[in-house]
Amino acid sequence: MDRIKTQILQRLISGKTGVYELIDWQDASLKEFLEVLTELTDLGLIKIENGIVEITEKGLEFCEDKNIKHLGRFQCECCEGTGYVISDYFKEILKDYKEIAKDRPEAIEKYDQGFISAEGVIRRVEFVYERGDLNRKIFVVGDDDLFSIASALTGIPEEIVVIDIDERLINFINDVAKKYSLNVEAFVCDVQRELPEDLKRRFDVFVTDPVETIPGIKLFLSRGVSALKGIGCSGYFGLTTLEASREKWYEIQRILHEMGFVITDIRRKFNVYPEEEKNFFRFQDKLPIVKKLGVKVDYNWYKSCLYRIEAVKEPKPIVSGDMIIDEKVYKDEESLATPY
Amino acid sequence: MDRIKTQILQRLISGKTGVYELIDWQDASLKEFLEVLTELTDLGLIKIENGIVEITEKGLEFCEDKNIKHLGRFQCECCEGTGYVISDYFKEILKDYKEIAKDRPEAIEKYDQGFISAEGVIRRVEFVYERGDLNRKIFVVGDDDLFSIASALTGIPEEIVVIDIDERLINFINDVAKKYSLNVEAFVCDVQRELPEDLKRRFDVFVTDPVETIPGIKLFLSRGVSALKGIGCSGYFGLTTLEASREKWYEIQRILHEMGFVITDIRRKFNVYPEEEKNFFRFQDKLPIVKKLGVKVDYNWYKSCLYRIEAVKEPKPIVSGDMIIDEKVYKDEESLATPY
Repeated sequence: MDRIKTQILQRLISGKTGVYELIDWQDASLKEFLEVLTELTDLGLIKIENGIVEITEKGLEFCEDKNIKHLGRFQCECCEGTGYVISDYFKEILKDYKEIAKDRPEAIEKYDQGFISAEGVIRRVEFVYERGDLNRKIFVVGDDDLFSIASALTGIPEEIVVIDIDERLINFINDVAKKYSLNVEAFVCDVQRELPEDLKRRFDVFVTDPVETIPGIKLFLSRGVSALKGIGCSGYFGLTTLEASREKWYEIQRILHEMGFVITDIRRKFNVYPEEEKNFFRFQDKLPIVKKLGVKVDYNWYKSCLYRIEAVKEPKPIVSGDMIIDEKVYKDEESLATPY
Repeated sequence: MDRIKTQILQRLISGKTGVYELIDWQDASLKEFLEVLTELTDLGLIKIENGIVEITEKGLEFCEDKNIKHLGRFQCECCEGTGYVISDYFKEILKDYKEIAKDRPEAIEKYDQGFISAEGVIRRVEFVYERGDLNRKIFVVGDDDLFSIASALTGIPEEIVVIDIDERLINFINDVAKKYSLNVEAFVCDVQRELPEDLKRRFDVFVTDPVETIPGIKLFLSRGVSALKGIGCSGYFGLTTLEASREKWYEIQRILHEMGFVITDIRRKFNVYPEEEKNFFRFQDKLPIVKKLGVKVDYNWYKSCLYRIEAVKEPKPIVSGDMIIDEKVYKDEESLATPY
């Protein structure tokens, strides 16, 4: 955890900051972040008051001793640190997407929903396009983000099929598809159930934002993988460092390898979950992290990395039949941003 | 390869382009890229004259049929698509680094040398800093890029040790270290030889740009891993998609997992190898890719991805003792940018 302490301290040397912003300056999971904050406080290196974190005199001496300095922030402001700008063409798509998304169903607790920013969805579509993957058959496993709508608005994908457990969302997507003549079809389907035969081995690409427990990830990825045709097919998914520790990532990477996939990209903090009226911050009083920090969210701190994987072997889902695990899908001891 | 064809065609719809620029619009290895170019030419979808690639009428019809369109480029110009800008502090470091690097030894064929741009080296230092890894003990395996100098110029690392097979480079680094009072020590050392005992298990971080054959990568990574203290330590290295196919990446990722590491980042095209007087493009007549394309390089097409890995288990190098493999270190059938 020395590295995490360094990340926190090298930010605090430049001045005090809110605790949610501080999350964004370090790489550990929320669970570990809280532990490090406690340790730094106990050591007298920092103090926290009303959610504002400040370095102490002792902390400054410690930094002097360890050669910890503040050298600034390097994230590019033109592209929010993602490396991708929204092109003129996609600005039009973004406009339409935002107009449509206004009427989206609210994120609800029951299914651990939450959605990334409109700009993030568009960047994801751009990234899929850049890879040469957009004009293909696309399968979306869980679509709180309305990725299906954004990609269909380009008119490029050959076919888009969405499955989601939430009937409200499925109805919304199908209604939008009808109204705007988009080639999207959406079905109510629980990832705990085996994929219907007619969806198996039919797609070139899958896209998902899995819940971040190991059983949950296994299910979301396996359903995506089951839907792919074969070698050369790819998957795109989000994963945080906040609710998935490095140990969990290690296990996920083992699973990906076993399923026959190479990881071609891991883009840190590619997506942000904005604090919007309909997003999961609505029920922040129920989020363990908010309870533990004791202050309301005042910064868009919940970000996720974008993974891209590609099948170099015949794709082999790690779960094939039904697997009913109920709430273990949504919660483990690292799920500190999941309401309970 | 459908995806790669799409990438190539969706670029060409917007107009003809040089063949080296075209490499930069697609994800395949050079070997595969050449195969796809041949296939597209044989199908009559493109034509190539004097290194300029153009789509044909038949190609346009094909794109119409497959819904392949040109939607623009999305790479952010403020940060060269990396997501990282060079901060004011690092602009000073960059200036000094460039001044020093003017006198660097030329890249030579014998050791398959080549170096990334000065800006790329600085971005890599920024990234290491951002991860909280800069103020630690850093081990550099092979340092054509002079990463050791750039990081030492910040005055932040606790210790930097470089090994390289090239005496010219070692002498240069030691001379610079002396002249500028940098805490860098460099030693002549061949990665085929077991690491000296006093370098083992001593560092927190390793940095390398391995050659891209599997035996070569095993050696470079193993020496880096051998130098690390334990769990929580990290490694940074470059890897291309150009001389390392997805199958090779898959094998590398298996090796990383086996050595006890999780991959925390894969940043596509984070680094570019510029066409500069002293870089490996000097002997471009000897590069297989240049021979096959039949035209001189006119675009900075050789880019590499930045990997970051972190030990979640006790680091276990896949090669521990000596392993003498001679030219297999440098060349395999994918090494089309390696002189022979």
